[in-house]
Amino acid sequence: MPWHLLFHSFSLLCLFDDINPCFLFRIKKLNFCQVDSLLDSVKWDNKGLAVAIAQNVDTGAILMQGFANREAVATTISSRKATFYSRSRSSLWTKGETSNNFINVHDVFLDCDRDSIIYLGKPDGPTCHTGAETCYYTPVFDLLKEEEVEGNKLALTSLYALESTISQRKAEVVEENGKPSWTKRLLLNDKLLCSKIREEANELCETLENNEDKSRTASEMADVLYHAMVLLALKDVKVEEVLQVLRQRFSKSGIEEKRSRPTQKSVEN
Amino acid sequence: MPWHLLFHSFSLLCLFDDINPCFLFRIKKLNFCQVDSLLDSVKWDNKGLAVAIAQNVDTGAILMQGFANREAVATTISSRKATFYSRSRSSLWTKGETSNNFINVHDVFLDCDRDSIIYLGKPDGPTCHTGAETCYYTPVFDLLKEEEVEGNKLALTSLYALESTISQRKAEVVEENGKPSWTKRLLLNDKLLCSKIREEANELCETLENNEDKSRTASEMADVLYHAMVLLALKDVKVEEVLQVLRQRFSKSGIEEKRSRPTQKSVEN
Repeated sequence: MPWHLLFHSFSLLCLFDDINPCFLFRIKKLNFCQVDSLLDSVKWDNKGLAVAIAQNVDTGAILMQGFANREAVATTISSRKATFYSRSRSSLWTKGETSNNFINVHDVFLDCDRDSIIYLGKPDGPTCHTGAETCYYTPVFDLLKEEEVEGNKLALTSLYALESTISQRKAEVVEENGKPSWTKRLLLNDKLLCSKIREEANELCETLENNEDKSRTASEMADVLYHAMVLLALKDVKVEEVLQVLRQRFSKSGIEEKRSRPTQKSVEN
Repeated sequence: MPWHLLFHSFSLLCLFDDINPCFLFRIKKLNFCQVDSLLDSVKWDNKGLAVAIAQNVDTGAILMQGFANREAVATTISSRKATFYSRSRSSLWTKGETSNNFINVHDVFLDCDRDSIIYLGKPDGPTCHTGAETCYYTPVFDLLKEEEVEGNKLALTSLYALESTISQRKAEVVEENGKPSWTKRLLLNDKLLCSKIREEANELCETLENNEDKSRTASEMADVLYHAMVLLALKDVKVEEVLQVLRQRFSKSGIEEKRSRPTQKSVEN
């Protein structure tokens, strides 16, 4: 029996026996009464629901949106798996219960009105039932421009739109006598790429050393990021993997993190 | 009169006069009938609403969530300002109409079920009516752990959580005889910081040059990002500004973008 159901049964028992359950149980270090009082603070609609949005903790991609009732949020808090209330089936459902593509929830946020919830988490695999990474792959402006949308065009924010562009350049074949794009030239020439990465990192440092304008720093950092992302594409490394590394480093204390590394590295909190 | 209202009046007129409005008007390069047919494809609930989520195109932050009716989506498409339907006031409202903090919509995405919408855009300022950057600043797990939450704790994804940590280190005062964190040491020593950025960029390149493991590339890129972000913090440059630079470069064609730059730079599409 899930703990929140156990809690509800127990609460009922306590009610009859005049026992305050708050002083008796702590499961998974979370206090029943706190969870209950927190759920009381949510502004459920007249069907007992609130909007619940699942977001990728590393990329920020909005994975899916559903609705949650009290039980769904309580289950998400206790199980750390994004759980919703299916309005069509009138039942609780945990994303991944059939596909195994769970969304592992790291944090839950309420909005200012307390009627909208973010499940911030890491998906085990594609979230959409269609196999797409997220459910948002229908771009309205492209459709209206009568542009043909090749495959799925996910709702990508700037960093991932750039990653996708670089990945397209990697897949493109340069025609004979064709002039390759700069990205393609970098992809085809490791020496050129590495010399650019070192050069741009140097120029970023110079903006600090020479006390240059903030706008120069932003521009040089953009250069560093872009060229480094071309290298990531060459090595088949996703930006998401890099951000996962950073999250794992910084969610531990510096000392813990350093101890867990095979070799001494320089990054700590 | 907003164009969609004009359109509705015009549609009505056409209906009586047996004219097909599709062949007559194109406003802002968008075809009325296409917009109408697209809006027909949305699965509005029994109140004629769908969930609409506004997301920052550069950072991926979920800014706010509201509901949209047909008119709200049509207005968003035509005005490019995120527009919702207020259920409490029973009227359309464009975010920013009183605060001037509009959300400038770059793209609109529908989900697989066509009952949920993302407005992907750039906010002019804080989105929340409380003055917070986004409406999601109530962290459930912290509340349950009885942890005191200092100020607002926004729902931050990995990159921005790291940016926030670095920013906190910058604000910290190192006590006499206290041992500063590695981040603080970097913040206090430009020479050390720049030598680390150059060293890490070099090590990132070496993972390509020496054909090292993908995991080494991810780890070295994490090092580059972290150290470069410390430099950004020193220069008071936000990651968001860097991503905006990248978006502006890559949303134009390489040639256009190069022409628009004051000096010849190396990044193009």
